[in-house]
This record gives sequence, C-alpha cells and structure tokens, in this order.
Amino acid sequence: MLDRTPSGTRDVLPDEMRELRALMERVRAVFEGAGYGEVYTPALEYERTFARDGARVSSPYRLFDEHGNVLVLRSDMTVPIARMVGSRYATAPTPLRFCYFAHAYHGVRPQRGQSRELLQAGVELIGSAGPAGTVEALTVLCDALDAAGLENYRVGVGDVTLYPALLESLGVEAAARERILAELTSGDFVGVEHELAQLAVSPADAELLLRVPRIRGGAEVLEGLDGPLEQAGAGMRTLLGLLQPRTARRVIFDFGLLHNLGYYTGAIFQVYDPAYGVPLGSGGRYDDLLGEFGRPLPAVGFALDVERVHIALRAEERSRV
Amino acid sequence: MLDRTPSGTRDVLPDEMRELRALMERVRAVFEGAGYGEVYTPALEYERTFARDGARVSSPYRLFDEHGNVLVLRSDMTVPIARMVGSRYATAPTPLRFCYFAHAYHGVRPQRGQSRELLQAGVELIGSAGPAGTVEALTVLCDALDAAGLENYRVGVGDVTLYPALLESLGVEAAARERILAELTSGDFVGVEHELAQLAVSPADAELLLRVPRIRGGAEVLEGLDGPLEQAGAGMRTLLGLLQPRTARRVIFDFGLLHNLGYYTGAIFQVYDPAYGVPLGSGGRYDDLLGEFGRPLPAVGFALDVERVHIALRAEERSRV
Repeated sequence: MLDRTPSGTRDVLPDEMRELRALMERVRAVFEGAGYGEVYTPALEYERTFARDGARVSSPYRLFDEHGNVLVLRSDMTVPIARMVGSRYATAPTPLRFCYFAHAYHGVRPQRGQSRELLQAGVELIGSAGPAGTVEALTVLCDALDAAGLENYRVGVGDVTLYPALLESLGVEAAARERILAELTSGDFVGVEHELAQLAVSPADAELLLRVPRIRGGAEVLEGLDGPLEQAGAGMRTLLGLLQPRTARRVIFDFGLLHNLGYYTGAIFQVYDPAYGVPLGSGGRYDDLLGEFGRPLPAVGFALDVERVHIALRAEERSRV
Repeated sequence: MLDRTPSGTRDVLPDEMRELRALMERVRAVFEGAGYGEVYTPALEYERTFARDGARVSSPYRLFDEHGNVLVLRSDMTVPIARMVGSRYATAPTPLRFCYFAHAYHGVRPQRGQSRELLQAGVELIGSAGPAGTVEALTVLCDALDAAGLENYRVGVGDVTLYPALLESLGVEAAARERILAELTSGDFVGVEHELAQLAVSPADAELLLRVPRIRGGAEVLEGLDGPLEQAGAGMRTLLGLLQPRTARRVIFDFGLLHNLGYYTGAIFQVYDPAYGVPLGSGGRYDDLLGEFGRPLPAVGFALDVERVHIALRAEERSRV
C-alpha cells in the first residue's frame, strides 16, 4: 500500500502534465478573452456551505478543524464561487464573470474506475438570466472546446424542469416522481420503465413518459410539442435562435438530460465526444443558488473535466491517423 | 459561517490570481529550462505513505475511503514524489528532475494567521548526491527567485546534522538533546537557554552550545571552526566554492537552522526577504527518504510558498517607490 495512490487517484507524469498544461492554457485564453477572471477558492469549506439546504450534493470527505467544525473537500467550484460572490461581491455590479482551474473531490464506488479527484476548468456567469446568459455560457463552452482542439464534440442541452413538470401534469404523486427522476438521472431506462409500470396512469400517458426522455436531436425535435412540453420546447427554440451558427451546430437537444446536482433550475448541458464514451463536462442554469448566499441573482456555468477532454483529444487524434 | 472560508484559508480574486499565475509561469520557465518536468500527485494519500516511520510529519487532515483506509491530505509534495519515484521510476536512469505547482495542507494554531492551504512551487532532484546536487538545487532556487523578480532575498544554508552532532560530542543525553532541538526548531532561544542551564556540562561547553546556533554570516563564519563543527564547516566551504557568484552572493550560512520535517539529512535551506518577515520557502537534502520507497537514492529539493513570494515581491516594489 505504501507505493500506491488511493483508489480513484493517480500520479500525472511530465509528458502528460505538459499536455494538460498546454490544454489548460488554450482554454484559459478563451475564458479570459471572454472576460472571465480566474479565481481560486479553498479546497476545504465548512460543511454547511455545501450542505445547508439538504438538496445540494455534499462531499463524502468530511474532516474536522481544531475548533471541531466540520470541513469538507469541495465537490465542485460552483457552490464556493456562489459563497464568494455573496461575501466578496455583495454589492458589485453585474454580470460577474469568473473562471477556475481547480480540483474537485467526488466519492467513488469500488471497481467503477471513477475519479476521486477531478481537475476541472469552468466558468460561472452570475447576474445574467436566460436565454442571453445561457447563450453566452454555451458560446464560451464551445469556443473553449474548439480552442482545445476537439473536432467532433457535441453539447447536449436539456431542461431540468421538463420531465418533473411532465410527471406533475400527469398527476404522478411526489414519491413516485422522485423515484422515477432518480432512475432517469442515473440513466437507468429499465428502472424508469419498471417505475412507470406501477403508476396509475393511462397507457398513452405511460407511453409519453417513456418516450419523452428519449427525445434527442436537432431543431426538429422541438416542433409539434404540446402540453407541458410546449413551454420547454419554446425555450429551447428561443435559445437555438440566439446561438451563432458555430455554436448551434454543436447542440443536440436532449429531453432526457437530468443532473444529480440539486441546484440546477432550467437549461442544463452535457458535453460528449464520440471518441470517448463518458461526458467531458456539464453545466446549466442555477438561478436560485446565489440567493442562498445573500445575493439573489440568476446564474449559469459549466465545468469541463480537463483529463477527460485530454483523453478525447488524443482519441480523436488517433482516429484521424 | 455560511459566507466564510474556514480559518486559515481564503478566496483568491482575479487581480491577485493573475499576478500569481504570471509569477508561477516565470518560475515554471526556470524549472523547465533546468530540466525539471512538472508532475502532479493526488491531494489525498494513504496515511501510511506519510506516517510510516513515525519520524515524518504527517497530516492533521485524516479521512476515510469507502474501504475504511485512512487517507490524509498531503502536507508536502516531497513524500508523494518519493512514493511516485519508487513505483513509477523504479528502474529509470538517474538523476531524476521533477517540479510541481500544487497545494499542501498544514494544521494551524488558532489566532496565528497560519495557512491551512499553501500553494507551493518546488523541485526535487533525485539521484544526485551532495555537494553537486545541493549546488544545482540552490542554483535553480536562486534562478527561480531572480525570475520571479525578487531583488533582496537571501538563502540561509545550514546543516541539520550540525547541532545534534555538537550536542552528542559534548555528552548531552538523548532526552535532553531532543528537548533542546525542539526549542531550537521553534526558534525559542530562551527555551534553549533554559534547557542548557539544566545540563551537567562545563560553563565553556554551555557557552558554546548557546553561541553556535547564533552563528550566521558569509564565508568568514566557516573559518577557525574545530571539533564537531569543523566537518560541517568544511562541507559548507566546499558548497560555497562550487556555487556560481550570482548564487553564492545570496547565501547566508546559518548554524542555527533546523527544520521540523523529519526527513532532512544534511544541508537545509530557508529563503528570506527583508521586505517580509517570514520564510518564503525551504528545502534541503533528504538522502534516506527514497530508500523507504524502495529506491535508495540521495536527493535534494525545495518548496517556495508562492503566495509569500508574491507578498514579498509587492513589499519590495512598494519599498522602491
């Protein structure tokens, strides 16, 4: 054990580190060029900063300071930056633009190859509501991935309120809604189907509930929606209309996109690359989070997993040879 | 509490972050130009990696993984890099040259203004014995501080074996030696005096023990030494003779220099600047550490506290206005 790093962690040796640095410098140039100032927040935060409303994802890494306060390793940079804005930018004019290059710490399940320590590159745009703020975030995201050198990435865009609203409109009770959303968040469609089979809804409604999370595609999937889907579809059409062509061509609307971070309130993103089978990053709107830190402002942001982007880049390069 | 960072930590806002990035880039250029490849090791390590021989300083930040193993936040980068060399460079030709820009985590005592999280820039030169390896480390150290833009810094150079050898040669028993060394490490000369007063040594020896830790200066302090001091003095003279003038003019020999890291074995360094009253960094030889990780090699390294170097730079700039 003496010679090993903890499971889910690893050493980065010089050849790889040089490539990661170069990648981060290209991304940083995009972030800073778009007006995002780099910040660093402590890796350790009071547990209450991350956990106070219960809905938010906390850190599995808890420890104590010398006063007995519970500290946690940050699980993302969005919550610390919201805290920072509440205290250090309490009266600053908006919008505020911040970026970061920092590690976040996640729990891992054994044997899944998950990372305990993630190197993230991200931005937070605070004080700019949707759709304009969302358009800016998506533009910076795609410009950063372009600068990184990725050629075939796509950005899935969904709405975190879409499926819950659909469930509610069909009269699905709260407890069942939560179970179904949990299955969907973990991408378990069999589990979703199992839950839906137990609902007291018409076969047509059950079919709708099963079909909607699989809706995925370009502008065409936004047409002909009705009921609770119409509003989300209209929002996505507006967003698409505001994107520049270079960004719009990267977007895939994904009605099944959900996220396990409790703070998202509207549009959410997930970055994919066909060369690598796992998401390279994610983001979305979190219009209620800043209010918890005393500065109620709409906000949107994203985080890229730098090491995954690097793997996707190398996989793309290999596929081009 | 929700709005605050844990005591001993802070948010770094964009204006400062931009300066820290620029400072690190200048230092990185020196490290890489001298052949040091940047590495990153996990912030979390198994506790045994840091603590297995008892003498080594461990981390106050302990937590558990999902298997019940005790993890710690790294308290420096030297031990993780020694672990990495033992496993990933087990048969690589030497010398090995690594650098890093990473955070380390220290315990803090309340109300002392100490940092829980330190941004360190450092190098490790592995497989190069003293004095040649020590000369290279001191040269890279001074070149990095020059590139950072510091004008008035000095590097205190001592020998961690000097005072213990003196105590032993005068017949001071082990328990008293440890108490005296602890007082000296914490810089408490009154405590040293108090301990010396209780020793069964001659007044001349007591005077010598009190005088030696205060010896501090240029080449002149290395002359006319005898007894157990002669060997350390000769080593320091050899070192001085091998340094280029631009490095030699920065060096101050300091016979009272000790360090609370248990792994140092010979020459140790500490960086000062008259514009800022705390050490900006430290380092030294650790010729026995690599052997604990299966690759017995002499080694030397140093770590700069990037934020302290930045404060000293700004203090120097202010004093020049």
